[in-house]
Amino acid sequence: MSVGSAADIHAVEAANQEFYGAFENADLDRMNALWAHDADGREISCVHPGWPLLRGRGEVLRSLALIMANTKYIQFVLTDVQVAVSGDIAVLTCSENILTASETEEPSFAPGGNVVSTNAFVRTGEGWKLWLHHGSPVLDQVEEEVDEQ
Amino acid sequence: MSVGSAADIHAVEAANQEFYGAFENADLDRMNALWAHDADGREISCVHPGWPLLRGRGEVLRSLALIMANTKYIQFVLTDVQVAVSGDIAVLTCSENILTASETEEPSFAPGGNVVSTNAFVRTGEGWKLWLHHGSPVLDQVEEEVDEQ
Repeated sequence: MSVGSAADIHAVEAANQEFYGAFENADLDRMNALWAHDADGREISCVHPGWPLLRGRGEVLRSLALIMANTKYIQFVLTDVQVAVSGDIAVLTCSENILTASETEEPSFAPGGNVVSTNAFVRTGEGWKLWLHHGSPVLDQVEEEVDEQ
Repeated sequence: MSVGSAADIHAVEAANQEFYGAFENADLDRMNALWAHDADGREISCVHPGWPLLRGRGEVLRSLALIMANTKYIQFVLTDVQVAVSGDIAVLTCSENILTASETEEPSFAPGGNVVSTNAFVRTGEGWKLWLHHGSPVLDQVEEEVDEQ
């Protein structure tokens, strides 16, 4: 269930799919095109699972290039997608169910864990552009993680 | 640097401080009051560091009651706060620098780690209300965490 006009919600969901499609294909050109440009007071921001907050196209796109270059295979299955649009901002939350290539030499695939994401988009002259990606790891044993700190 | 009218940005920053103030004081009444009400297609959502996505006031407020009841002492120092407001949605990103009571019996305080948060607010007849809190752990050794999965 989502809030906003059907056209906006559809366009935001398509922009969101473009992010995951570009990631799966390790396509930096598509990644460059789908992120918003930095503006006064509105730098793009990105949090990879377990990472600190990155701000600005330079830092964000370099980090994505690095991660994509070091990812052999990845596929995202999104569930629990919810979108809210108001004015020129859209906020989408979803769960990413990740499939990755296993580390062994045998060709096989393994569950790559679960990530929760908040993706925010801004409306521009060129359509909805990604302005914030915040992914966080779903840890199996939160209690243990907390104790380790 | 933030985007929106000065009055909106000020009000959103105050609503954000109210969230952390209520948390520090383990005040469930204040927590109940500052979160938005669920609406069609716009349930409140919450991700605690390392947790899966929780939706709806029931789940979210129960989780906060549980965490606050089990937290002896916590203080948040927010840095790198950025706000964007458009229409009836505001999105705030920040880094939480956390101070907690140490586990030893000696009265002392220890760094409780770093969390990155995305907090989204909706404009209501009663002012800006929290609609999404997404906190994610900043892990010291991301590589190790990934290998463990």
